[in-house]
Formats: sequence, C-alpha cells, structure tokens
Amino acid sequence: MITAPLSKIGVTGSIGMNIRPHIVIIGAGFGGLAAAMKLAGNDVRVTLIDRQNHHLFQPLLYQLATASVDASAIAWPVRALFRKHSNVDCLMGEITGIDTDRKCVLLKNDEVHFDQLIIATGNVPNYFGNAALEKHTLPLKKLEHALDIRNRVLGAFERCEHIDNSVGDENGINFVIVGGGPAGVETAGAVAELTRQALKQDFKNIDPKKTRIILIEAGERILAAFHPKLSDYSRKALEKMGVEIWCNRMVVDCDEYGLTIDDEYLPAESVIWAAGIVASPAAKWLGIETDRSGRIAVDDNLQIKGFNDIYAIGDLALVTGKNGQPLPGLAPVAKQQGKYVAKRILTGEKASAKPFKYFDGGIQATIGRDAAIIQYGRFRLTGRLAWWAWSMAHIYFLITVRSRLSMFSSWLWSCFTMQRHSRLIIGRGEN
Amino acid sequence: MITAPLSKIGVTGSIGMNIRPHIVIIGAGFGGLAAAMKLAGNDVRVTLIDRQNHHLFQPLLYQLATASVDASAIAWPVRALFRKHSNVDCLMGEITGIDTDRKCVLLKNDEVHFDQLIIATGNVPNYFGNAALEKHTLPLKKLEHALDIRNRVLGAFERCEHIDNSVGDENGINFVIVGGGPAGVETAGAVAELTRQALKQDFKNIDPKKTRIILIEAGERILAAFHPKLSDYSRKALEKMGVEIWCNRMVVDCDEYGLTIDDEYLPAESVIWAAGIVASPAAKWLGIETDRSGRIAVDDNLQIKGFNDIYAIGDLALVTGKNGQPLPGLAPVAKQQGKYVAKRILTGEKASAKPFKYFDGGIQATIGRDAAIIQYGRFRLTGRLAWWAWSMAHIYFLITVRSRLSMFSSWLWSCFTMQRHSRLIIGRGEN
Repeated sequence: MITAPLSKIGVTGSIGMNIRPHIVIIGAGFGGLAAAMKLAGNDVRVTLIDRQNHHLFQPLLYQLATASVDASAIAWPVRALFRKHSNVDCLMGEITGIDTDRKCVLLKNDEVHFDQLIIATGNVPNYFGNAALEKHTLPLKKLEHALDIRNRVLGAFERCEHIDNSVGDENGINFVIVGGGPAGVETAGAVAELTRQALKQDFKNIDPKKTRIILIEAGERILAAFHPKLSDYSRKALEKMGVEIWCNRMVVDCDEYGLTIDDEYLPAESVIWAAGIVASPAAKWLGIETDRSGRIAVDDNLQIKGFNDIYAIGDLALVTGKNGQPLPGLAPVAKQQGKYVAKRILTGEKASAKPFKYFDGGIQATIGRDAAIIQYGRFRLTGRLAWWAWSMAHIYFLITVRSRLSMFSSWLWSCFTMQRHSRLIIGRGEN
Repeated sequence: MITAPLSKIGVTGSIGMNIRPHIVIIGAGFGGLAAAMKLAGNDVRVTLIDRQNHHLFQPLLYQLATASVDASAIAWPVRALFRKHSNVDCLMGEITGIDTDRKCVLLKNDEVHFDQLIIATGNVPNYFGNAALEKHTLPLKKLEHALDIRNRVLGAFERCEHIDNSVGDENGINFVIVGGGPAGVETAGAVAELTRQALKQDFKNIDPKKTRIILIEAGERILAAFHPKLSDYSRKALEKMGVEIWCNRMVVDCDEYGLTIDDEYLPAESVIWAAGIVASPAAKWLGIETDRSGRIAVDDNLQIKGFNDIYAIGDLALVTGKNGQPLPGLAPVAKQQGKYVAKRILTGEKASAKPFKYFDGGIQATIGRDAAIIQYGRFRLTGRLAWWAWSMAHIYFLITVRSRLSMFSSWLWSCFTMQRHSRLIIGRGEN
C-alpha cells in the first residue's frame, strides 16, 4: 500500500561514513547465503537481495510436497539469519536489470549501487520450449510449488473418495514424475510412502494403494550421475515400494488430463516436472551469451569474463571440474563458490592467485525409509546405513537449531507412526 | 481431473447391509467434529462433509497469522482423526442445497442421502452489507486468511525496508484491527509482540517499533462479554504493549490505502476484520427465516423447527441460555451441542425428554505473554497465572498429541528466544 518515494540505497560515499566497499549479492540460495555469511562481520557492507523473504533448503522440498514437514522446517527468513550482523542488509525485491556502467542493480522501484556484485540466482525448470509442459506440469523449485503439489496429491484422493468403488479401474489415480535424477527419485519415493503407508487407512471408498506412481526417465537408467550398481539398487528399491520406472521414454506433450509419452497417451492426475533445469536468466541482465544450459562463462576466480567486480556462482556459473566436465548443480558446489568469492573479496589481490577448486564430498540420494545411496569416489553405500548417514547429514546442514529439532522430531514422528502430520489442503489464490 | 460418473453415496437399503441409520454431518468445526466423535464406533453410519480437508482450531488461528506456529499445529486432516472408525466416512465437498423431501444433501457432483442430518456450518464474517469492507479488509476465519495476514504484515516491513529512514514518518506502518472482541484483542496483542519483539533486530533501515497498531471498537469498551474490571485490565495491558485502543468509533468505509473511521481517514497497511460474524447461510438451503445474526430457531432438542431429523448446532443455532440471552458463539457451546445431538440420535426417544442445557465453563482471552483474563461466574483471574491457565487449557484442547507437542515446543521456543519461527512469505495465487 505504501508508495512513498524510494531511496537509492547504498550509494557509496553519499554519507561520509559509508566508505567501506559495498558487496551486493543477488540470490539467497546456498551460494549467495554462504557468501553473505562469510562476509558478515567483516569490514564491508553487504546487501543480500532475493525475490523471497526466505532461504529455502531445496534438497528437502519434496518432503513438504509430500506432507512430511512444515514449510518452516525447511525455509528461514533471510533477515533473521543476519540479525546479529549490522553490516548485512537484506532486501526482498525483484531484479529488473543491471547497469554495469553505473554499477547499479536495478529493482522495480529502487536501485542499489555496488562495488562488487555476486550473482547467485540459481536455476529454473527447463521445459525445452514446450509451453504445454510449462502450463500443465508441476515444478518443484519453490515453497509455493511444493504446496501446489501437496494440494494436488491430497485433493486427488479427496475427489476420488466420492467415486463409487465398484467403478473399478476408474478410481485409479496416476501420479507421474518426469525426470530420474535425485529430485525425481526422491519425490517418487516420498509419494509412494505417502500413498502406500500414510493414507492407507484413511479412505473408505478407495484404496490409495491402487495409485500408480510412474517415474519417467529419458535416459537409459535413473540416477545417471551415480555408479550403475547404485542406479540398479535404487530402481529395485523404488519398484519394491510400488513405483513403476519407465526408462528410455520421452515426454513429448501434456494437457490437463494427462501426458503423451513417445506416442502413448497416459491419463494422469498430476505430472511433476523434475526433468531438467536451466540457469536463471541472469545473463540477460548483462547482455551476454550463455551455454545451452544458460550458464555464464567465468574465469578461474569465478569472475564473469569481460566484467570486473562481477562474479557468478552456483548453478549459474559454468566451471570445469577435474574430470573436464562442468561442475554439477549441487548445493556443496554453490556453497564452496560463495565462500571462495567472499574470501577473495575480503583478501583482495592476495587470493587471486589461487583459482577456485571444488572439494568433492561425494553425492547421495534417498529413495525412502531405510533406503538411500551414497557415492564418494570409489566408495559406495546403500541401505539403512546410507539412509541414516543421509538423514544425519541433512539435519546437520539445516541452517538453524530450531529447524534441526523440528525436522528431527517430524522424522521421528513419522518413523514411529507412519503418519504425515502436514496433510493440509490450503487453498491458493482464492478465499 | 477425474470426471467419472459419481455414485449416490449412502442410499439407505440400496445394498442389503446398509440398514444402519445414516447420519450426515455438515461442517467439521467444533460442533460437527464433537458429534462425529460421539457417533464413531456406534451402530450408525456417519458421513462428515466439509469444504476443507481439515478441522481448524480457530481460537489459535491468530497465532498462525502472526507467525508463531505452523498450520499443522492448529489444523488436522479430518479423515486422519477417524482413521480407526470404519463407520465414519469423510467427504470434502461444497454443499449446494438440501432436498428435504428426498432427504438428500446436494453437492456439486454428488448427493448424499441422510436419515438424520446435523448442520454445523458455523459462521462467516459480517460486513454489514458493505462491499468495500469485504474487499479491502482481511478476515480471520480460515487457514488461508491467516496466511494472507501473515504475508501482508511481513510483506509490509519488507517493502518499508527499501524506504530511506530519513523520510521519517513516511515509513510508519499502521495495522488496524477492527473489533474489540477476543479475536480482535488477541490478534492486536500478537501483532504487537511480533513487531515490538520478534522483528525488532531484523530491520536495519526501519524501526518496527514505530508501527502503529490500532484496535477499533464500536462499543464503549473492549471485551464487552467480560466484567468491566477485566476489560480495563486488558486495555491497560494492550496499551503497555503499544496498542492504541479507540472505543466508540465506527468504521464506515475502506479502500486500498486505508479506512474511514467516523469522519476521519486513516491510512493503513492492513485492516484485519474481526468486527462481526453472522451465521453461515445454511438457512437458505432449507428456505427458512433466521434472526438478524443469521441463526436458525431450534427446539429444546436442537431440532430445527418444522423439520424432523434435521438439527442445527453451534453458531448456526439460536439457543437461549439461562440468562434469557442467546448462547454465545463459543467452541464449548458447539461441542456440547454436538455431543448432545449425537447422544440423542443414539438413544432415540429416551433422550428427547431432556432438553439441551449449556454447562458454562467460563470465558477467557489472552492479551500477550504473561497477560490473560479468565472469568467464571464471579471468579476472575488476570496476569501471569491466567496466561498459564489459558495456555494449558488450549494445549489440552488441541486434538492430537502431535499438535500438543508441536504447539508446546513452539511456545516454549518463542518464550525463550522471543522469536517467531514461521515468518515465511509464501505467495498465494501465483508462482
């Protein structure tokens, strides 16, 4: 409601005291947050800008979508994290562009001057230019997406409960998850647990176990980033949970009632899109070229080629790893890059000799209760032990003590009761 | 997505086994839920219909609106509560009418036959016919409303953080709560705690303490249902917390930027409407008259006058208490009525001799941490002890063990840290 004239925040030197360099960070994901945390308390001014008021722990977003946890267990108001650091300002706002000549980040009603800029805007779903897929499938990138999926999954059962059981196959519900990477696999597993266990006693007229859960992968195997043996283990674990896995299949179209896979039409209640991501369109602000995945070329120090004092980190940055391949879009990569750039800014020239090097801590994915996979170089782990290691690691990486407790108690609760406590259908967009 | 033909659920006798009487309950609020719980496990079939998939513990809804608790702490999927009772069906659906001749409840794509019907549809906000108030103020009746208020309150601070501090009074935010009943008082107190304590360190450019919180009451004093001394205590407690209380003032109009109080225009960031309720429009389904507050006349047994086998309970029923006044729209009234009707249905004629009688357990309201009021006949209690009694009572009345633990831990957490852990702005209606 307030439409007062907006100030130009952070014009260096406009007030005598502001002679410390002003570092602006766009994006409060893993990379941006790590950079801001490293810079906090140091002799710089930091402004962290995000479209949302919260940092989201995206690896567990599928647990919100499947009613296991509350939003507040996996998302934290950014400014609360920097409460004790007077040198960090947080702004919630939409970036409209970057004026590189004037060194200004442009917002809708505002602009922020920077001395150094870190762009950490992450990725967006990739629909490969297919508008029907974008319209009819459900992505899983933001809190809002997870709540939409939760509404759709729970709502489907509520509607089917009206339908007479005798109709037979008519009451079958198909949930389709497109994309056999970690996000797709974890979501498929969680939907299976939700429908097979948590909901099994709740419906009198339909049998949630009849729900088909179909995971579609265009490649030869799911979890292609892992060793084939781990892929195989995951496929078997998912199938045991009742998930059908269709490999070597391409989703070519989608409408309100289902989707076309190769040349077969499959009716579906919900189609969750975990098939591809593309770097966020930050390159457009700078008017520069990207690779096919939308990533921006950076030098060894993560500075965007051709721009002084502007860095790109995380999923947005095209960085080549030891094996000659681009580094994957993982939280640890983004976090290490955020810390690296922050350190470089703080130490100045001294650090510039050392190029960024990714420390690979291994990769992991979870399939369901007691089933997970971990791969660290040649070391591979599956099963219950892997699941516990996965759980402990994820609880450890949650940002606040409160969320750790909350997540731990939610998991403990569902472990013992097999229930999901957040099964609320909350309307979005209407009252 | 599924549009298969829908069955007629509950046509008594259509299948040989279904000879048990079919009790249909509309509304899963306090009254409807109490009736269903009493009927569960007995020799009747029960269908509980609600527009939502959850029962909402409305007395604590303001705590969701002010970021203290998560939605899952105060709302539970109805069907999960009746998981163990095979004689209770739950349906999520919108009622479109009642066919009293055929004894059918009509839904959008369905109809449900009943032998006995309990209508427990509660109340809706009363805007006294003013469309501007309905459009521009925020009610607080459903989860969605609470999340809207949370978005507005937190969003206001985020926007103002962009504005230069030097602008002075321009960065003041007015939150207006209309209605000095328990809902209005509790919301005002919670908004004051949120802005004065939880947010005070978070903003660098604005001072959340400068926020004006104005509680408007048309009558002579707030909490008019309580003894004047308790009203007075509450007024002082609120004022100490920084809430301005304007009594004898009428809100006459409202627009996007503020509201008109008597003949004064007050700019306001958000206007929360807790000024009046009216019974839900269930009387229309029956084509009968109501009193000014939309309530339906019932006999001593809570049967709607002129209709056999149709009961009205809770806020919808006009029942006169011992003092000759209509019973208030309180949860205990609805719960006792729900139990009474269920018992009457189960015992048949025997019970009909005993008219419904309300057991008055007293009334209570909370103003903020360590400040609450309790009134039971001539007994009155204020202060910290009242607050503890209020807290314990509310935790006790939460439906599930999970929520009790969750609520208790949330409160304990905010008690020690003064923080609010659910401060997320989650978009509604857009991605």
